[in-house]
Amino acid sequence: MFETRLKDAASQVQAHLDDVIGAMGDLPVVQAMSYASAGGKRLRAFLVLESARLHGIAPEQAIWAAASVEALHAYSLVHDDLPAMDDDDLRRGLPTVHVKWDEATAVLAGDALQTLAFELLARPEASADPLVRAELVLRMARAVGAEGMVKGQALDIAAETATTPLTLEQITELQAGKTGALIEWSACAGAVLAGADTEALSIYAQKLGLAFQIWDDVLDVEGDVETVGKAVGKDADAGKATFVSLLGLDAAKSRAQTLVQEACVALGSYGDEGETLRQAARFVISRHS
Amino acid sequence: MFETRLKDAASQVQAHLDDVIGAMGDLPVVQAMSYASAGGKRLRAFLVLESARLHGIAPEQAIWAAASVEALHAYSLVHDDLPAMDDDDLRRGLPTVHVKWDEATAVLAGDALQTLAFELLARPEASADPLVRAELVLRMARAVGAEGMVKGQALDIAAETATTPLTLEQITELQAGKTGALIEWSACAGAVLAGADTEALSIYAQKLGLAFQIWDDVLDVEGDVETVGKAVGKDADAGKATFVSLLGLDAAKSRAQTLVQEACVALGSYGDEGETLRQAARFVISRHS
Repeated sequence: MFETRLKDAASQVQAHLDDVIGAMGDLPVVQAMSYASAGGKRLRAFLVLESARLHGIAPEQAIWAAASVEALHAYSLVHDDLPAMDDDDLRRGLPTVHVKWDEATAVLAGDALQTLAFELLARPEASADPLVRAELVLRMARAVGAEGMVKGQALDIAAETATTPLTLEQITELQAGKTGALIEWSACAGAVLAGADTEALSIYAQKLGLAFQIWDDVLDVEGDVETVGKAVGKDADAGKATFVSLLGLDAAKSRAQTLVQEACVALGSYGDEGETLRQAARFVISRHS
Repeated sequence: MFETRLKDAASQVQAHLDDVIGAMGDLPVVQAMSYASAGGKRLRAFLVLESARLHGIAPEQAIWAAASVEALHAYSLVHDDLPAMDDDDLRRGLPTVHVKWDEATAVLAGDALQTLAFELLARPEASADPLVRAELVLRMARAVGAEGMVKGQALDIAAETATTPLTLEQITELQAGKTGALIEWSACAGAVLAGADTEALSIYAQKLGLAFQIWDDVLDVEGDVETVGKAVGKDADAGKATFVSLLGLDAAKSRAQTLVQEACVALGSYGDEGETLRQAARFVISRHS
């Protein structure tokens, strides 16, 4: 059930992004946007489409918000990979944008992908109700700006030159910004589209996001580069604090499992209809990449 | 009249940005956002506030859109100054963000300033009408994305390694994206806020934007670094095509003057009320920085 829907979400969002970016011409910066927004698990798009389904929103409508969050995610990866940031040559098993093109193109492609994310939410196709469109934009901006994702990135970079490793509390705050806020936006999007309460989905997503990040740290220790599709062992080599270094491998896994259970419980009010989102939560801590 | 209103716009938008960014904490990335969004002529904010005044929108409301466009403009300058882009050490007479902090902070501060621009437009304070908020966001996204400002930047970078210099048509297209689209957004914002027709303001702004850019090229030849506040003579030294190199200095000045006259004529329907915007157009081709 979950695997099928994740796969469907991935192909639908890919087709939608291809349409939208394909209409933007063929400058290298547009080619780079297309390249950077291809592939990946599409977990965020899935969360949008699935929470939309739970609230009776048609997939043809929800695809706009789903494409938006994947454009936003792609922007964050392109900039995160830059030499001045994480300096990664490989992403999803392929050369990163600044390696395949150059740094200027990577800066601009990331910039334009962020802009595109907001455009997709503000377009009338995203919702017939302008209040919903403005609300999606506002929530997105708060999730990814200097008090959300960028804050997480900035804390991450500051940690690299800090003299003392981060505490568990600090790394939790860092990750809540860096990956958690956008995952929460995604899971709540369906409720926002329907003008419904977002509290249950918020709690689900906060637990899921943290479990996701803990599992990324587990994969950085246990994974191999070919399966994971990007460099592994980097954090340990750099002496960076991670959930694994702070908790130990077994306790980190156990913490992720508890969070996933709590995420599933938070969806109680959705009954059986919430099962696919529960499967998604369990998937997060069983994945190998 | 114009000088007073430009000065008022500058101090109002500065106070508003200080409030908004000041509430975002004190991480270096937030300090860099504040630094990058300080100073400047504030022509874009003035255009927002003045077009809003023409349409009966209160300044306390229009200030949100005015602050938005200045945040967006600041983002574009921070990224444009990066070593991988124009590699400028000086902006408004001060060290650029990547010089004062580092490249990672400059990438992130620019990213978060773009996000902030969209947040300010989507906030309920920007307009009580959510349709207006969504429309401001959509127009902004189209003005600054891969078919607007980023396209202009990408064409500019491509021109640096091209074997033949740009034609007048190509440089006009480049500048329409790089600076014209955001100036047009600014001049139209007041009409959008009032739900009014934007055509006259669009034409005014297109003429004004082109005149503005021609005058920048004139200053690059005639200005000195202390008055202009950034490096001059760079374009000529780099053998880049500019309006001055293509038209000659006198014809470039004359073209800018004609455009300013046409911009003033486009405001005919505003009668005497449009006089401050006409003064603004004349200011653009009399400035020394």
